[in-house]
Amino acid sequence: VTRPVITLTTDFGEESYYPGALRGVLLSRCPDAILADITHHAPSFSPLAGAFVLSQACPRFPEGTVHLAVIDPGVGGTRRGLLVASGGHRFVGPDNGLFTPFLDGARVYALPDGGEAASPTFHGRDLFAPAAARLAGGEDPAELGVPVSDPVRLPFPRPSRAGSDIRGEVLLVDRFGNLVTSIRAEDMEPATGPALLARVNGRRIGGLSRTYADAPPGTLILLIGSSGHLEVAVVQGNAAERLGARCGDRIVVGP
Amino acid sequence: VTRPVITLTTDFGEESYYPGALRGVLLSRCPDAILADITHHAPSFSPLAGAFVLSQACPRFPEGTVHLAVIDPGVGGTRRGLLVASGGHRFVGPDNGLFTPFLDGARVYALPDGGEAASPTFHGRDLFAPAAARLAGGEDPAELGVPVSDPVRLPFPRPSRAGSDIRGEVLLVDRFGNLVTSIRAEDMEPATGPALLARVNGRRIGGLSRTYADAPPGTLILLIGSSGHLEVAVVQGNAAERLGARCGDRIVVGP
Amino acid sequence: VTRPVITLTTDFGEESYYPGALRGVLLSRCPDAILADITHHAPSFSPLAGAFVLSQACPRFPEGTVHLAVIDPGVGGTRRGLLVASGGHRFVGPDNGLFTPFLDGARVYALPDGGEAASPTFHGRDLFAPAAARLAGGEDPAELGVPVSDPVRLPFPRPSRAGSDIRGEVLLVDRFGNLVTSIRAEDMEPATGPALLARVNGRRIGGLSRTYADAPPGTLILLIGSSGHLEVAVVQGNAAERLGARCGDRIVVGP
Repeated sequence: VTRPVITLTTDFGEESYYPGALRGVLLSRCPDAILADITHHAPSFSPLAGAFVLSQACPRFPEGTVHLAVIDPGVGGTRRGLLVASGGHRFVGPDNGLFTPFLDGARVYALPDGGEAASPTFHGRDLFAPAAARLAGGEDPAELGVPVSDPVRLPFPRPSRAGSDIRGEVLLVDRFGNLVTSIRAEDMEPATGPALLARVNGRRIGGLSRTYADAPPGTLILLIGSSGHLEVAVVQGNAAERLGARCGDRIVVGP
Repeated sequence: VTRPVITLTTDFGEESYYPGALRGVLLSRCPDAILADITHHAPSFSPLAGAFVLSQACPRFPEGTVHLAVIDPGVGGTRRGLLVASGGHRFVGPDNGLFTPFLDGARVYALPDGGEAASPTFHGRDLFAPAAARLAGGEDPAELGVPVSDPVRLPFPRPSRAGSDIRGEVLLVDRFGNLVTSIRAEDMEPATGPALLARVNGRRIGGLSRTYADAPPGTLILLIGSSGHLEVAVVQGNAAERLGARCGDRIVVGP
Repeated sequence: VTRPVITLTTDFGEESYYPGALRGVLLSRCPDAILADITHHAPSFSPLAGAFVLSQACPRFPEGTVHLAVIDPGVGGTRRGLLVASGGHRFVGPDNGLFTPFLDGARVYALPDGGEAASPTFHGRDLFAPAAARLAGGEDPAELGVPVSDPVRLPFPRPSRAGSDIRGEVLLVDRFGNLVTSIRAEDMEPATGPALLARVNGRRIGGLSRTYADAPPGTLILLIGSSGHLEVAVVQGNAAERLGARCGDRIVVGP
């Protein structure tokens, strides 16, 4: 039989032992599990950025995977713990919008709180990891929580149109300094191809490249990245540094 | 049968291939092992910080787990290699105090040195990982080393009392900038609750919060963290940056 | 039966979800695989540094291991995808010299391109990971690609001699700030031992130490590191910071 996969997505940082504590709890309670990190460096305190990361990575995993996600600035407060069953995948974590991309058509359950045994500051370890281990061990979400119909949804920043312009924002900066924006390929039609012009932080970038290698090193380029979203990049360089850009910065695209 | 778990704790950094070399040695010699990182970013050259990390993370793993820990500024010198069997867990690494939290009541063995075959600068790869693999494969520590009764112990910095004040220090700064201190919940009694006052780097912080979400974003707070130790935090912010604080800094707590 | 091992080596950074996407594809297509990271922080855009990392880490893994390596500044351009079978190990990634250390005596195959289904910017996810999963599942490289005889080879920077001097360069800086150079132990003979003198960035360092612990904290030392290469280090300190040194910097060694 295939061993169950549990993915881990947090903003704890690899430099802390907190991801290690999760791994210990998971392997103590589900010794058969295959643990696979998505990242432990999701932008801190940002369920929205976490939702984008999950939307890109989780569907790559096999059906039946349990996704433990802990980006949880409200830990110990009134926010609920959530179990989500959606499209053959299961999700466990805080009810703060992190699971927005998977809520349509999903079965959603609230976890009971952990009582005195759970640290009020580390539900990842004391509530969510034990629940993830139980799901991976074959239990149904309905056995672990009570059905709810009102999970928190975070509105993904959708690009807006103003005349022929499309306004979006930077969703994520990757290690290469590439700016992944909220503008998807389909949002740009018909404003694609060589006539495309983007403005970011006062700089103009023209034309749509197909790959990071389409222009000489150092060139600022636009391209549709592997997420299907418009990206701003510097060939073998760092667009975030070049443009002084970061998450939330505005990008305007026009023909 | 359950596959054996081997955890890895080092100060090598994920950016180096050294953790990868350990994984290769472990899987070459114990193909059944489940490898689980605790961290590869333990504070460099600090067996004491490493001991704290191990004390928090290792007990989360199942009985029978082998913990390979390599924070080893004295590699190749006169310090011994150690095997520790304690409470159903096994530990392998340098004899520099790293295993202090697990020594009470433990069986302790010194590893023979690796001779010419071992690099004098990478015992993690050439001595400790092979020993960890053998333990994970079912061998007893007594087969791999000779009993010793004098492993190095590092005195954990215990808080001291001066009148009604409790003096402690910062043990660890996590990715969120939270300051984990040497003062445990039980050290503070009866000085708890709203009357509590802490001084760190010239700043005064009053009252004990229950969670990171108990105050508005930006507020400096005190709370008992998930390790059972007093922490200084900024709600959705970074206390280490705010206070210019780092490991070893003094904290004084009073009623 | 032993489960197949797949290693991952990229320059994606752990902070991105890209390594997570690779793990998802691998586990979807080869559920039995044991995934083991070598590093996701290989120097960006540098197949040469990646080749050094692979040369050090891959041979530590068991025979039969599949090594997925994606340091791929030319992704989506004209460079081919490659399968390499060498000494019982298999390698998958871009044809840019990354696999130079393993090409002698190897069987080498070019992967067909991925057509429209593959993102032109993420062959790691859409071409290389699927191929790695098929190899791990037991397929032969000859089933996946066509034989080629002209894989890209990167000349490793070999030290040169000028009179009694040996000139080399810094290949890699590790987390400790140690400078791993292109000069191997065997390149230095007979210029070894206490008479050795090295010059790096205007500083002179004398004598060859055996370990990082052979001198008082803060001392600049030379030693043969665990890779068999000459290293410059500071005892319990950071040589890269002390010397303002980085990859590519010149080192000259003489008797």
